[in-house]
Amino acid sequence: MIDFEVAADGVAVLTLNDPANRNAWSPALEQEFYATLEAADADPSVRVVILTGAGKTFCPGAAGSRLDVIAETGISYADRVPFSRTLAFRKPLIAAINGGCAGVGFIQAMMCDVRFAAATAKLTTAFARRGLPAEHAISWLLPRLVGLENAIDLLLSGRVVTAAAAKELGLVSRVVEPDQLLDAAREYAHDIATHCGPHATALIKRQVLVDLDSSYRDALDRAVAATEAASRTPEFREGVDAFLHKREPRFADLPADRTADGDARRAK
Amino acid sequence: MIDFEVAADGVAVLTLNDPANRNAWSPALEQEFYATLEAADADPSVRVVILTGAGKTFCPGAAGSRLDVIAETGISYADRVPFSRTLAFRKPLIAAINGGCAGVGFIQAMMCDVRFAAATAKLTTAFARRGLPAEHAISWLLPRLVGLENAIDLLLSGRVVTAAAAKELGLVSRVVEPDQLLDAAREYAHDIATHCGPHATALIKRQVLVDLDSSYRDALDRAVAATEAASRTPEFREGVDAFLHKREPRFADLPADRTADGDARRAK
Amino acid sequence: MIDFEVAADGVAVLTLNDPANRNAWSPALEQEFYATLEAADADPSVRVVILTGAGKTFCPGAAGSRLDVIAETGISYADRVPFSRTLAFRKPLIAAINGGCAGVGFIQAMMCDVRFAAATAKLTTAFARRGLPAEHAISWLLPRLVGLENAIDLLLSGRVVTAAAAKELGLVSRVVEPDQLLDAAREYAHDIATHCGPHATALIKRQVLVDLDSSYRDALDRAVAATEAASRTPEFREGVDAFLHKREPRFADLPADRTADGDARRAK
Repeated sequence: MIDFEVAADGVAVLTLNDPANRNAWSPALEQEFYATLEAADADPSVRVVILTGAGKTFCPGAAGSRLDVIAETGISYADRVPFSRTLAFRKPLIAAINGGCAGVGFIQAMMCDVRFAAATAKLTTAFARRGLPAEHAISWLLPRLVGLENAIDLLLSGRVVTAAAAKELGLVSRVVEPDQLLDAAREYAHDIATHCGPHATALIKRQVLVDLDSSYRDALDRAVAATEAASRTPEFREGVDAFLHKREPRFADLPADRTADGDARRAK
Repeated sequence: MIDFEVAADGVAVLTLNDPANRNAWSPALEQEFYATLEAADADPSVRVVILTGAGKTFCPGAAGSRLDVIAETGISYADRVPFSRTLAFRKPLIAAINGGCAGVGFIQAMMCDVRFAAATAKLTTAFARRGLPAEHAISWLLPRLVGLENAIDLLLSGRVVTAAAAKELGLVSRVVEPDQLLDAAREYAHDIATHCGPHATALIKRQVLVDLDSSYRDALDRAVAATEAASRTPEFREGVDAFLHKREPRFADLPADRTADGDARRAK
Repeated sequence: MIDFEVAADGVAVLTLNDPANRNAWSPALEQEFYATLEAADADPSVRVVILTGAGKTFCPGAAGSRLDVIAETGISYADRVPFSRTLAFRKPLIAAINGGCAGVGFIQAMMCDVRFAAATAKLTTAFARRGLPAEHAISWLLPRLVGLENAIDLLLSGRVVTAAAAKELGLVSRVVEPDQLLDAAREYAHDIATHCGPHATALIKRQVLVDLDSSYRDALDRAVAATEAASRTPEFREGVDAFLHKREPRFADLPADRTADGDARRAK
């Protein structure tokens, strides 16, 4: 249900590929998706990941047949992977929204760092139309992405928006022709993979996420400490050397071990 | 001073109508406004409310004559209705800004969920020009609506912006010709009133507001609990059935009793 | 390294002027910058400050030669002025970004209240390309200015954006021809300096900043108290009189003493 390929430059493409179900989100797909994401996080050769869908949809959310079952039995998240794992992914995660993107598929797209959409893509929150609340903290995330009015508008109405409207609302930052979607996302990902420090980008992702819940004062204290630590790492030394000599940087990979990260940065 | 009409589809129009004072905000108007809003909240036949003004102004804020009195006596909010009641309104609240919108009138418009403006409307915060701070927590709300720079710009300068500029700044999401303003707002409201679950939209409004002050982690915990509960309600069952059979949903009304809401959702 | 001039209307221009280093940020420039800002804060004749750069750059961040030293010795902020002083400046601070604006120069520009950019200006966060985290809490500030996706995009990629792209992203609110940059900023600053209460604008700046870290409920309580206090000040009386008689206001200056501010407002 999931394809995963890594190119030589460290740019990987993770493809939702369940054609029989138009890539609908299911417990089985969810499990494989997070296993793949976990492996990509731990694989030092992976620098940036692009998330896309095979065929004509990105992910339309849960299938109608599954909603029907849930409406009979109710749903429990007790033994499910929390969506927060997508936000905790350490490497730049780029959504390439190739088509229909709704419900939990919409949420996964919004939890990526940067969003490209095919001009033919359509997006919708959908929840209110099914009698559901905003799931997986999208009511926390969406106002921070597109501002309060656009977030409430999209969540209350559950209306479908085109890629062009999505760009105007701030849901996606780039709209491109369908046949250029992956190339455009790859070009952007390649630039980060080859020019940006893997430790720095992992640190920045964490800073931005933590700082959304933080006071300015605490964010400043952490930033000062992080900068002091980073100024003593080989990654910074390499970044400065590449800058001074106007050459491409050769940054070391991010190690698999998450806990080693902070230490590795300090041990020069 | 307040007109209120409910159409058969559940879309109500609440009109500020005090022509002698150009709909200026006064303690008397405020009292009638909140009494009407309270009644609309409790009336099960009301699904969505449109807030607009009669004549050529939406609401220009407090009248000059009233400011003159306040500048002599000072103001006290001890026995006034807190503006937070507008934010606590359970149903979608759509502003149709038909003309001049300033000061506390501007704040009321910003506390609506979605804003339509007539192309001829003009908006201003006004406070700094009178020597006043940002009132009623608009300094909290505005950066969350339009971003920090636009919020500070509008609050520090108190400058007047046209509807077109307001759209560019993100103060309003739709600008339409004056004679089409109410129809455009009604069309949007009708879509929500007929297609979205009244319990779901009430829940989403609360989620978005609470989540603005919440950590992601807490928001996620609440969302998971809310989704598990909603998956066992008749509203979700009806939403799924309508979806599966491609028919219009027939959602039950939101009961008058606010406290009954959560329980009603669970008692299937 | 710093030029500072105050015009008769209270609009001051603070110019980074170190042509030998293209206005690169250095400890010496930093010290002089904050001494000047401190003096401008305390000078009652200064109403609004415009921050700009001499020559072809605004501020390109730290010079390469300085980065080279830091990469050898590491950096310590123990005896440095915290950048939070820029955010704590009591008067409207307008950036006139005349050219290259990167790294800590980018951060200083983002900590201004309103940003004008010359059409020829270029902006970049730059940090990730040097192997550095988001410095000085820009990971806190940027999502609140331009939304989460644009903030992460700019921080992860460290890509360079033109003034036009910066406007689309929300990094700057106005783009003007280079030879009109200072005049445009001055015109905006003049409007505030002559029409807005100096106590009110100081109060609003503090409200907005504090309210970013605050719950709605606390923000509302503070706003009510601030409005009640302001309604008994000479500044409000003058603002209302000017409004009623359709004349220009003659507001008293903001006193040098920060602690006297609140008291002065109450002592009518």
